[in-house]
Amino acid sequence: MMNLNSVVLGIDLGGTKILSAAVDRQGKVLCRDLTPTPVASGHPGVIEAIKESAGRAIGHKPFDTKAVGLAAAGLVESAGGIVHTSPNLPGWTDVSITQELARTFGKPVFIINDAHAAAIGELKYGAGRGCRHFIFITLSTGIGGGLVLDGKIYEGFSGFGGEIGHMVIDDDGPECACGNRGCWEMLASGKALEREARRRIASGEPTSILSYCRPEPERAQIDCLNAKTIHTAAVNGDILALELIKRHAYYVGVGLANIVNIFNPERVIIGGGLSNIGDLLLKPAIEEAARRAFKQPFKGVRFMKAELGADAGVIGAAALAWNHVM
Amino acid sequence: MMNLNSVVLGIDLGGTKILSAAVDRQGKVLCRDLTPTPVASGHPGVIEAIKESAGRAIGHKPFDTKAVGLAAAGLVESAGGIVHTSPNLPGWTDVSITQELARTFGKPVFIINDAHAAAIGELKYGAGRGCRHFIFITLSTGIGGGLVLDGKIYEGFSGFGGEIGHMVIDDDGPECACGNRGCWEMLASGKALEREARRRIASGEPTSILSYCRPEPERAQIDCLNAKTIHTAAVNGDILALELIKRHAYYVGVGLANIVNIFNPERVIIGGGLSNIGDLLLKPAIEEAARRAFKQPFKGVRFMKAELGADAGVIGAAALAWNHVM
Repeated sequence: MMNLNSVVLGIDLGGTKILSAAVDRQGKVLCRDLTPTPVASGHPGVIEAIKESAGRAIGHKPFDTKAVGLAAAGLVESAGGIVHTSPNLPGWTDVSITQELARTFGKPVFIINDAHAAAIGELKYGAGRGCRHFIFITLSTGIGGGLVLDGKIYEGFSGFGGEIGHMVIDDDGPECACGNRGCWEMLASGKALEREARRRIASGEPTSILSYCRPEPERAQIDCLNAKTIHTAAVNGDILALELIKRHAYYVGVGLANIVNIFNPERVIIGGGLSNIGDLLLKPAIEEAARRAFKQPFKGVRFMKAELGADAGVIGAAALAWNHVM
Repeated sequence: MMNLNSVVLGIDLGGTKILSAAVDRQGKVLCRDLTPTPVASGHPGVIEAIKESAGRAIGHKPFDTKAVGLAAAGLVESAGGIVHTSPNLPGWTDVSITQELARTFGKPVFIINDAHAAAIGELKYGAGRGCRHFIFITLSTGIGGGLVLDGKIYEGFSGFGGEIGHMVIDDDGPECACGNRGCWEMLASGKALEREARRRIASGEPTSILSYCRPEPERAQIDCLNAKTIHTAAVNGDILALELIKRHAYYVGVGLANIVNIFNPERVIIGGGLSNIGDLLLKPAIEEAARRAFKQPFKGVRFMKAELGADAGVIGAAALAWNHVM
């Protein structure tokens, strides 16, 4: 008889947040914990934070935890269990994270790039069900991509495939933490939206954005703004916030056009925090893509919101781990 | 017993030239004809030119022609035998070319995008043999792409996949015939190199480039320059020609970096007329890609020259046709 309390621990390690969750064999999240990523403390601090978060999510509950699936931002080598580098986790170079976490948890640990994990989650349980070719995009702190081609995740020659966030869309654009210039991520990610908002507020443009920021200790108010505050201000009619989102939509759209032209996908599935801005961002972005992409592949594509929301990463990572346990 | 004279007629219809060839079952070109594409005469004129070229290549020879494989520039729908649109064949909109050619030749005609054809050619008989993931690029009048992923050509949802030439690398760049702006093709194709050369010569920069142009009737000398003339001038130490190629290599490199980041391919196989410029163009292009791409996928990739040269398209189109005949 199947033990109904069998779970795997899914962990989604992002540039701003760590999500831990107990996930059953059907991809259902039974309980969870969300905590900020202590980016400044480097990987030892982050591993400690993962451990504590997992404890809060899963500790003292009647679960038989079979394995751990970790979705991590950055260039991840699944086979070796290594995070090679991550633009949003500064200081991480060739970190053997699965080894360290296996010691911590006493369970087998499997790792995958966070966007690949989310794409697998959407393919198995979300907006990608039954779809042969789709491109999954996380518009988040950074921009990640998961290419589902011929019904399975495309990993490339050594597991690094799908880094669409680091596709140049402006060859002379701003420098990216990855060493490149004008990456899509530098122009269309959450970071980019916040950077542009700070720049324009600092230059004295009138706006109510800051009034929606929750003040935090030891941080200037302008450092507390984020995509959500900008969105709230826009919904309340703030002119600058509306302009910022419109400009942002333009850059999102340029990248979407590239994706349509390169992949001729059946669906483009958009997740990540910025997708919560919804039509205010996505409608003009898709219109910009329509102006730029070839008409024929554009006609065939459906742009869809991801269905698993913030859980896509843990669900996909858990699906990976379930594949490895009986 | 197999008839040794069995061939298929391979045709490569490009923006500047039509190549017709008799190709045997082993992918060997037995004879060929090369003729300029009468772009200005629209598709009826081009079909006439194809017919004449095929006649010169194959007529009166002891061949049993089984079928016709046509590689065509532009957005091609293999299943329907339609050229939807082609930036380098102005005026072509939804042309049912296989129907018209089947009437002309009295044989079954199969069509495929020219870069896909060339990728298939390289996969079966050239630089892609035994390779699971490679990206084939034609640096030619335009820029075409063929994605070989998991050992086979990736066509996308409706057959238009792989249009990497129309990936934006400068969102505010020059307008492309496809309706987009700043496409890789607008900055790194043969057309782009010629356009920049004309602009700089017209602005009065001293150069010997024009002295290498063969004068043509009713064309201004400046309209007779091409990538080959610029290359010849560069080899002979012309400063402007060297600068033009260096600048061009920069744009080629930006696109190569995108390809490495998006696909993490095992090989990048570079064909098309511009690849004949060789290291003078490709070395600085690969160096620019190295500066921009993620280190890990870059380490794994080999940049190779296509092996089938100008024959890749006809050989690949013929391979497609051979697949359809017994």
